[in-house]
Formats: sequence, C-alpha cells, structure tokens
Amino acid sequence: MALDRLKQTAAIVSGDTGPPYPLDPLTEAEIETAVAIIRKEHNGLFFNTVTLWEPRKAEMMAWLQDPKGTPRPHRVADVVAVGRGSKVYDGIVDLTEGKIVSWQLTEGVQPLITMEDLQIVESIVRKDPKVIEQCGIIGIPPEDMDKVYCDPWTIGYDERFGSNVRLQQALMYYRPHIDDSQYSYPLDFCPIFNADTQEIIHIDIPPVRRPVNKAPPSNYHTAAIEAEGGYRTDLKPINITQPEGVSFKMDGRIISWQNWKLHIGFNYREGLVLSNITFNDKGNERPTFWRLSLAEMVVPYGNPEHPHQRKHAFDLGEYGGGYMTNSLSVGCDCKGAIHYMDASFVNRAGQATTIKNAICIHEEDAGILFKHTDFRDNSCTVTRARKLIISHIFTAANYEYCVYWIFHQDGTIQLEIKLTGILNTYAMNPDEDTNGWGTQVYPGVNAHNHQHLFCLRIDPNIDGPENTVYQVDATRSDAPVGSDENKYGNAFYAKKTRFENPVQAQSDYNAATSRTWDICNENKLHPYSGKPVSYKLVSREVPELMPKEGGLVWKRAGFARHAVHVTKYDDDQIHPAGRHVPQTSGEPSQGLPAWIAANPTANIANTDIVLWHTFGLTHFPAPEDFPVMPAEPMSLLLRPRHFFLRNPCLDVPPSYCSVPSGVEQGGALVDKISRLAFREGS
Amino acid sequence: MALDRLKQTAAIVSGDTGPPYPLDPLTEAEIETAVAIIRKEHNGLFFNTVTLWEPRKAEMMAWLQDPKGTPRPHRVADVVAVGRGSKVYDGIVDLTEGKIVSWQLTEGVQPLITMEDLQIVESIVRKDPKVIEQCGIIGIPPEDMDKVYCDPWTIGYDERFGSNVRLQQALMYYRPHIDDSQYSYPLDFCPIFNADTQEIIHIDIPPVRRPVNKAPPSNYHTAAIEAEGGYRTDLKPINITQPEGVSFKMDGRIISWQNWKLHIGFNYREGLVLSNITFNDKGNERPTFWRLSLAEMVVPYGNPEHPHQRKHAFDLGEYGGGYMTNSLSVGCDCKGAIHYMDASFVNRAGQATTIKNAICIHEEDAGILFKHTDFRDNSCTVTRARKLIISHIFTAANYEYCVYWIFHQDGTIQLEIKLTGILNTYAMNPDEDTNGWGTQVYPGVNAHNHQHLFCLRIDPNIDGPENTVYQVDATRSDAPVGSDENKYGNAFYAKKTRFENPVQAQSDYNAATSRTWDICNENKLHPYSGKPVSYKLVSREVPELMPKEGGLVWKRAGFARHAVHVTKYDDDQIHPAGRHVPQTSGEPSQGLPAWIAANPTANIANTDIVLWHTFGLTHFPAPEDFPVMPAEPMSLLLRPRHFFLRNPCLDVPPSYCSVPSGVEQGGALVDKISRLAFREGS
Ligand SMILES: [Co+2]
Ligand SMILES: [Co+2]
Repeated sequence: MALDRLKQTAAIVSGDTGPPYPLDPLTEAEIETAVAIIRKEHNGLFFNTVTLWEPRKAEMMAWLQDPKGTPRPHRVADVVAVGRGSKVYDGIVDLTEGKIVSWQLTEGVQPLITMEDLQIVESIVRKDPKVIEQCGIIGIPPEDMDKVYCDPWTIGYDERFGSNVRLQQALMYYRPHIDDSQYSYPLDFCPIFNADTQEIIHIDIPPVRRPVNKAPPSNYHTAAIEAEGGYRTDLKPINITQPEGVSFKMDGRIISWQNWKLHIGFNYREGLVLSNITFNDKGNERPTFWRLSLAEMVVPYGNPEHPHQRKHAFDLGEYGGGYMTNSLSVGCDCKGAIHYMDASFVNRAGQATTIKNAICIHEEDAGILFKHTDFRDNSCTVTRARKLIISHIFTAANYEYCVYWIFHQDGTIQLEIKLTGILNTYAMNPDEDTNGWGTQVYPGVNAHNHQHLFCLRIDPNIDGPENTVYQVDATRSDAPVGSDENKYGNAFYAKKTRFENPVQAQSDYNAATSRTWDICNENKLHPYSGKPVSYKLVSREVPELMPKEGGLVWKRAGFARHAVHVTKYDDDQIHPAGRHVPQTSGEPSQGLPAWIAANPTANIANTDIVLWHTFGLTHFPAPEDFPVMPAEPMSLLLRPRHFFLRNPCLDVPPSYCSVPSGVEQGGALVDKISRLAFREGS
Repeated sequence: MALDRLKQTAAIVSGDTGPPYPLDPLTEAEIETAVAIIRKEHNGLFFNTVTLWEPRKAEMMAWLQDPKGTPRPHRVADVVAVGRGSKVYDGIVDLTEGKIVSWQLTEGVQPLITMEDLQIVESIVRKDPKVIEQCGIIGIPPEDMDKVYCDPWTIGYDERFGSNVRLQQALMYYRPHIDDSQYSYPLDFCPIFNADTQEIIHIDIPPVRRPVNKAPPSNYHTAAIEAEGGYRTDLKPINITQPEGVSFKMDGRIISWQNWKLHIGFNYREGLVLSNITFNDKGNERPTFWRLSLAEMVVPYGNPEHPHQRKHAFDLGEYGGGYMTNSLSVGCDCKGAIHYMDASFVNRAGQATTIKNAICIHEEDAGILFKHTDFRDNSCTVTRARKLIISHIFTAANYEYCVYWIFHQDGTIQLEIKLTGILNTYAMNPDEDTNGWGTQVYPGVNAHNHQHLFCLRIDPNIDGPENTVYQVDATRSDAPVGSDENKYGNAFYAKKTRFENPVQAQSDYNAATSRTWDICNENKLHPYSGKPVSYKLVSREVPELMPKEGGLVWKRAGFARHAVHVTKYDDDQIHPAGRHVPQTSGEPSQGLPAWIAANPTANIANTDIVLWHTFGLTHFPAPEDFPVMPAEPMSLLLRPRHFFLRNPCLDVPPSYCSVPSGVEQGGALVDKISRLAFREGS
C-alpha cells in the first residue's frame, strides 16, 4: 500500500499524471512519501502532523504571474513528529526533490493533541486504581468502570506541572447506559494524564465532594424521543432540487462561480483555507484576498474555582479544526446539489488517513438580491440572489462548530459560524450555589460561563498586495447645534484613522460609531468617489476578552486582547497563538504579541499586511442549551466599497422587470415552480 | 358598492357570517361603514386614516380568558380626517354600535402624508413657473418639463414655515428618457409645496448652481443590461417545492406552526403587527409576547449644508409602512409555497382600497438545527431546522425596506430587515468636494451619509403580563489576578441591572460586555436554573444616533436617543415619535420622551411594560450601492432563556441518528432528494 503510494507520488512529482496545484493539500501518497523520506534518516518517531508547507507568497505570486517562465513551487511537507522521551521534532521535507530540508529538535514545546492521543486516555483512566477509588467515593462501584468516560483536554497550563511533560486533563463523565448523554453525569474530580508514561500522575479532587448525579438521563436520541411520545409529525417536506446541476465549476480544487474564483485548501489545523480569491470584474480578474482562514480560537471558561481556573481551549492550535472535522452526508448537513472534498492526514504510525466528505460545497437561494419599485406607476425590478457556501463542521469534544464561508454575487464574502453540540458541564450537588460562575442547566449539572472567540486571519490582496487598513468611525461634526456650520446638529462623517504600525493598529470594537475597518489599496482610487478601492470588515459580534489582563488566558491568547491587529506580512506568521500551543505558559506570549514586540514600529501602511480579527460571543448557559444546543449563529462580512465601478450584479437575471414606459422588457424569469400555499379563497 | 359593503358589515356585526377576530384589520366594508357613519354628521372631509382601533389590552385579555362570559370587544375605527382649511380631526367610531365615540379638532398637527398626497405634487411642480425658471437655469428647457420628476417628502421641520401649514419638500430629478433612473439626475433646487393651496410657496436655491448632470444614464432595467452584453447565463435553477403543502395552518388571521400561534395584523403605519404570540410547550400554551411591531423609524442624513440639514424621514410616522407596502408575487419576492394576505385602507375620498398580497407567509429550510457527534465512535444526531417567515416590503420613495419576522423551532423570534432600493441622491458639479458629508457614487451624483434607525416596540407577555427588564453585562470579577478568588484571572459573570423606572431604564448598547436585555417574569423561576423565565433581546446593530443632542432630529426622534427605553404599559402609547409626526418641531419632544417625563418614577418592575428598542445601521454610501443597492441585511433575536425546561425542539425528526450501542434507531429521515453535484470521481 505504502509502496503503491510512493510510486504514485513519484509519478506525480515527475509530472506524468499532472502534479497537484501548489496550494493543494498533500495527497495520501505525498504524506506517506514524506514519512518514508524522514524514516530513511530518523527512527522511532510517532507522527503528529504532515501537512502542506505552503509555497512562499512571493514565489507563488511570481509563478502565477508567469507559470511558464518561473519554476513551479515545490511540493513541500511541514512535519511534526514525536520521538522517544517526548522529544519534538519540526521538519521540512521537499517532496519534489525527495529530501529533508530541515530537521530540528524543538525544546520545551508540546505539539497539538491528535484524536489518537485523545482516545488513549479513556482506557487508561478506567483502569487506574486511584481513579477507581475516586469513582467509588462518589458512588460508582468498580464493576461499573466501563460506564466511566472522559473527554481528554490538553491541560492548558498548570504551573504545578509546567510545559515539559506532555499532559492531558481528563474531564470525567458517567453513562448509566452506553447511549446516555454523559454530559448529564459529570464527575467531580479531574485526573491528569502523562502522555509519555501513559499514566495518571495526579487527580484534582474538590474539597466538597459531589456524588454522581441521580437525575434521570437527558437524551435526544430516537429511543428517548419515542419514549416521550415520538417525533412531531407536522413538518411537511421542503425539497430543493437543481435539475440542471450546479452553477459552479471545479478545476481541481479551484472553484469558479458567479465571477468568483478561488482555491480551496484544507489543513489539520485551520480546516478550510481559501486562497487567491479573485473577482472577474467585466473580464478583469481582480485579486481581493490572498488567503482567508480561521487561524485560531480560544474558549475561556469563567469559573475561578480550582481546577476550573485553567479550563480553556484553543480548539485549532491545541486539537486542530481539520483533524476534528466531520465526514458530511448529503441531505443531512446540506441540501440541494452538493460537491464534497475529502481531507487526508497522517496518523501516529505515519500512514495516511482520509476523512471522506470533509468539505461541503453547495449553492443556496439567498432571497432578494435587489428590488426597487417606482411608487408612481409600480414599475418594478426584483432580482433574486444566490450564494455559494463552502463549509466544514468540526467536533471539539462536546461542542460542534459549523464553519460556512459564503460568497455573494455582489462581491461580499461572509463568514458564518454556527455553534451547536453540547455544553461542557461539571458536577454540582442538587441546587448548590453556582456562585454566578455557571448555571444549573439540568439537576446536578453546572454549565460554566464561557466565551467563544475566533481569530480570523485576513491576508488581503485588494487589487494587489500593497494594502492599508483604516479604522472608520461615524463621527459627529465638532460644530455646535445652532452654528452656521451645523444649524440642526445633523452633521456627521466617516472619520478614518490610518494604521501605520502594529502597535497603533491594536484596536477594539466600537458599536456606537458603527466602527468598521477598511482594507484599502491606496494606489488605486475609485474614478467616481476618489476613494481607495477597498474591502470593509463589518463585524458586530465583538465582545472583549473576559479573562483579565495579566491572567493566564490573556497571556496565552494574545490575539484576543484586541478586535483587530495588523502586522506586516511574514510567510512564517500563520498561527496567532504560536505554532505549538499546548501547555504554553504565555510567558512570553507567543504569536501576535511576540511578532509585534519584535518590530513594534514596522510600517504596515501601503505594504503587504495581514489583518487579524478576533470576534465571537459570550455564552451564559441556559437550560434551553441542554441536552443539545440549538444552533447559535454568528456572522461577519467583507464587503467591497469603492472597489467596483457600480453594483457588480446588475446582470443577474431578474425575477421580474417592468419599466415606466410599459415597453416590453425581455429577460423576466419568474420562478414557475413556486405555488400558492392554499387554493384561492381558502 | 358602498351600500353593499354597509350590508356586509351589518351582517358581520350582527354575527350572521361570523365577525372578524377582534385584532383583525378593518375590512373594506368596515372602513366604508366608518366613513359613512362619520359623513352622517360631518361634511367636506378628506380621509387620511381609517384603521383598527385595537381593543384595550385588559378588555382583550379578559375576553380571551373567557370568551363566552365576557363581552366580545367591539369593532372600532380610529379615524384621521382633514377638513376645509387643513383642519385635522381625530375620531373614534364604534362600528359595533354604529356611532361616533369621539370626534375632535386637533390643532397644530399634521397627519401623515399619504401616497395620494405625494402623487399630487409632481404635476404641480411641473407647471409652476418658478420651478420652470429654475429648471431653465440648470439647463432643462421648458418643453422638457415632462422629464422633470420629484420625490415629495414631508418637510420634516423648517423653522421658517413652522407646523401650521401642511408642507412637502420636492426632491427634484430629471429623466432624459422615461425609463431612466432619475437618481442619476438630481436637480440642485428644492421647491416647497403647500398642500392646502396646492402651490409652490418657496424654492430653496443653493448659492452655487449645478447644471443638470450630463453623465450617461445608469440603469438596471432589461434594455440597459442587454445593451451592455445581456444577463449572465451561468445560473442554473434552484427549485424549491413543497409537494405535501405547507406545515402551517391558518384560522382566519391566526397562524399555527411548530408550536407557535399568533395573530397577524397589519395597519397603515406599522405594517405587520404580531399579537398574542404563544408557544405550545408540551400542551401548555404559554404566552411570550402580547404584541410586536416596528413602531417607528428615522433616517437622519448627515449633510449640514442648506437645505439638507432638514433632510430626515420618519418613514412609518410620516408616510406609513403599511400605506407604502408592495403587492408581492410568487416566485419573485418569495419562493416555495406561499400564503398571501391583502391589506385594506381608506383613500382620500373615503373609499376602501386593497393592496393584494401585502403580506407573505412561507417556510424555509434553515440549515442545521442541532448536531452532535461522539468523537469516540462517530455516533451522531443531526437535525435540520425549518423557519416560518412573515414578511412585507415597503417602498419609501427611493428606498426599499424588506421586513421579515422569522419564527424558529427553538422558540427564537428573529426580526430581519433588508435594505435595498436606491440611494437618496443630490446634485454635485463634477468632482466637487463633498466635504465628507457624502460620496460621489456616480459622476455628478452625491449620496449623503445617513443612518437607518428602527424602533421595535416589544410588548412582552412572558408567561403573563407582569414582566421586568434586566440589563445583562458580561463582567470580570473584581478579584485581582493571582488572588485566591481569581488566581488565573478568568472569573466572569453576568451582571444584571434591574430596571425600576423609565429614567433609569434609558440604556445604550455595549458590545464589549456582550450586553443583552432580559425580559423576565420574576414570579416564575426555572426549576433547574432558579432564574426567572425570560426572553433575551440579542441585538448587535446598535449605533448611536449621530445627530447631536439638542439638534432637530434628536428632539423629534426621542426614541433614538437610547438603544432601550422601558415604559409602563399604556394602551395609548403606540407611536414613539407621537401620533402625528409630520412637521413636529420636537419642542416638546413627542412620544417616548413626553411619556417618560410625565411619570419619570413610574414603577416598571414586575408589572405590565413595553420595551422600545432602537437599532439600525450607519450608511456611508459607495458606488457599489448604485444605481440600485444590493440588499444589506440586519437582524436581531428574541431568544428564550430559562423559559423552557430544556431544548424545546428535540422532537423535530432528525435527518440522521445513530447511537454508540449501534442499536437500530428509528425515525431517520435522510432527505432522498438531494444529490451529489458531479458524478462520483469527476
Ligand atoms: Co458556548
Ligand atoms: Co442607506
């Protein structure tokens, strides 16, 4: 098998069957080739990551400009492996040349926790005598240890254990029956697992014990719903069909749709990576964003009681949004005509594995695109909108994150995230005081306050890589009411603050001024407005980071201190909380704070820049979120402003068009499928 | 015709054919009956409004409690009429008893401007010699006066003319061809129209003249698009069908859908009014909101240059969101299986008129309702969501407002508003400096900065009328980082501020603290969380009112000074900028500020209250908004918190359900209609 793949790779890199596009994720064959190349020189390794080392931006842009006259970027693998004694190796392997480019032992770091790392813990926990003892204390007999479960989390950081030993904390649960939701039965103690020795090295035990919950199960599976009277029967089907197929085209992983064109990448960590996004503006393929991805996230919990003070998760940096991604299915996760893409990763043993249907691509009707009626004569144009959705869903232990990148015909890019899944829960004695740090969502179940903060990495390319960010605030005129300049007091304007360096660019959200951030190309002015071509970041779910300045999460999640950071582009700056996130102490802070501190006065105006945007929501749990949470949506927009000469979607065929003259207008495309719900008069 | 209707009404009020539901809008017959009753006593009237005078809340609630033992609320008409000399009469007519209940001359007010009032102006303007002269000055010869158009607006307020003469300002435009968009050809002067004398009494002329625009037309009708190469041809159809019909039922104007039940009203002013909204919670029909409506809005413009300083529109109070509503059509405005409702109004002559298909009711698939996968074994439940949408669209001269009331299966009510249509534009000389007050969106076309601020009237009924509002802010613990109480600095909680009186309840938005407002019933605590049953207002598009304190808009639009006001319920407090809005000076401020000033210490805790929420957006125009604006959406949520025992939609049939035990689970409802986009492997 591995040999076959080696041959395939050889064929690919020699060009016999056409090579992957430079931004494509590594194929299964390439992954196994990288492993084989490393194993020629290094033994006894477990593999943590083998992923595409993306072409350097300058190299990639040069090749795109002149693919024939410029060397094709090599296929290169970025490798993290763990050797004996938990030694961590970072390596780069050039697959095109078949050789290791760099290989280094990296001290004092912990690479992310893979699904395999996670799955080991539960079986160890069940057999550990100290865990069995603790289970006994709260009412679980030794013969029921098969009913004990755990969600292993990285430890985050705990100063008692530091960063050198690879640790997981086991959030403990119980299931009376295998199909019962364990989140109704949280256990009150927390074992600490040493991944090197594969043993429990400590158990955090609360001063007040909480016997295992005696409440009945709270389930949502079919058997439970049927036992309570069954499913509702009053939902009639809505069928969505695309008899002529989809409106997008795929060329490998490059999608074209409604003037948009982009490359769809995917990696173990960020999940979806959208690159070289262009918009065909009347024949002119104009760049908009070089690369968009969710680069990091942090979920800080708000309970300071030991050991919950350390509970927070960097779901991307500590576990990987790609590694945790779901295999999707037609008609369940998406409706209509669906195109899926798979995702391939390395496993611990160095073999390639593939998640089928990791990425979903589909279109949806999007309601009214534009409409106007002349009130004089009711002449009217109404045009319906279509949207393209590129999505994946990942499961981070209890939570589900559904990530939708949505492209609109008007040049807008929308990122929508839906949160669903299950609350992280902790044990409480019946009607124990939660001290305001959580909510009893079910008898004996305490769901702690928390935030979900996402860091969107925006690498803009607004008509070219030289871009500038302005903060824009609706601002009242200084002139007083009654003055000649402002008689009625109505004057207001868009106050623009130009970001010159990364320190000055650290900025927070202000809803009062409708604050947005404009990403401009100052070298190109709109012929009508005279303003730089730009995309505007419109994001309204932007709370402050609740953990305090100087505290653990504040130190570790430097990206979350401000809504916006801007840095000068650097090929190596992808991960805003650092490359290896688990067990970082935050001293010094990795990622964004370190990069900014290293060059606080770097010029970020009219140059190649990256905008890092942290947004999200604050979640005070309620019983409605239990036992499974109805999806909570959150959305932001990147909107073209002064970018197009005018509305760029006027040529979308209208549903209806009439004009004041009454002259016949062609092109009316009334949907003949839709119907009245009831017969006339009923 | 009118006599027939009188008979119908007689039949209805005598109960022969079943009377309208007390909250139903007046029928055509009832409208004409009201007019006939008034005309028996009063002559020479033009009718401005004949609309339902809604039953008093106490009376209506008593009747709902005991429909047999309590008198049915009478059918009553609320009438505004204009007599000779622009005298304004406010009247109430009891249709059940066939008599006038009250009739009064109201001094110093102007009722709203109807579509008929608006349509008179253009023909007068075209014939006015002073207007013809001004047209000549900017390059329009007298023989082209048929190419001159105007959008008549109320004057707002202009201290030169005061409130006693009924005025409109004519925003002037030109069309080279009847089908050309006039908003590319704004004229630089502004005639003032006296509605009593039907003549132009003044023209505001700018110091610097701007000849009529010489730019070519900027159109979006079919002929224009075809002249430029035609419509795009790469959109394949998406068909939405409901072969078994819709999932909602109509009983008159009461709709039932997915445990929701509510009455759908409609009036000339607020448009949609949703009343007595209940949610069937396992057989218990629980009240949530007594009445929801968009009660007012204001669009202040930000240019202080004369005469633009007075440009602002109260689209509901000055024109009527119902009066301006569109007649909708299947497949254009909505797709799927649609139920429409008509809307009837009075005209100037006292006859009933009806807008067909004024209200659209339909369902849509709403993506994932909830999903969770167990990472151990990939057992998974995924359930798709459905939403019910009750909508109307109104055209306010240049702008379109699409109002969508969306009901979700999880008990959430969402209000989404889409803005589309055309920017209000003013003339500019080519590349004239806009001084920051506007944008040249097309050569010679200046679109001024503005806001769209909506006032949502929330009359809550959270398990009964006695409700309390809390402001909720995510707040960090006071304990310092490193202290025993907050070692890692992560502690945060939901700080709740109870609103006790209307002055204290005046509150602004704070994105930093994820501020929400909880509408609670303190008399009913959730059995698990111990917290009052509540609905949470989650609204994130909440800029400050830009016009300055003490200025005209600040005075006239008192509701927009704060994001939230709370008042004690009063049957007569429906219109937050006052009953008659045109030409109010704001001295004193009408509506909310007057009500609060009248009783600043009224108790608003644990009593019958109304929450007034102002939200919206700030619009700095860009060329992409021209010549017609791609829809810009805005959304807020009312979410149940501590209201349901648990997630109330667990019994929605899943698309897929598997369990860890592998035991067969019934009820899986995978959509068999959806398909892969491409053949396998392509
Ligand atoms: Co949450
Ligand atoms: Co606008």
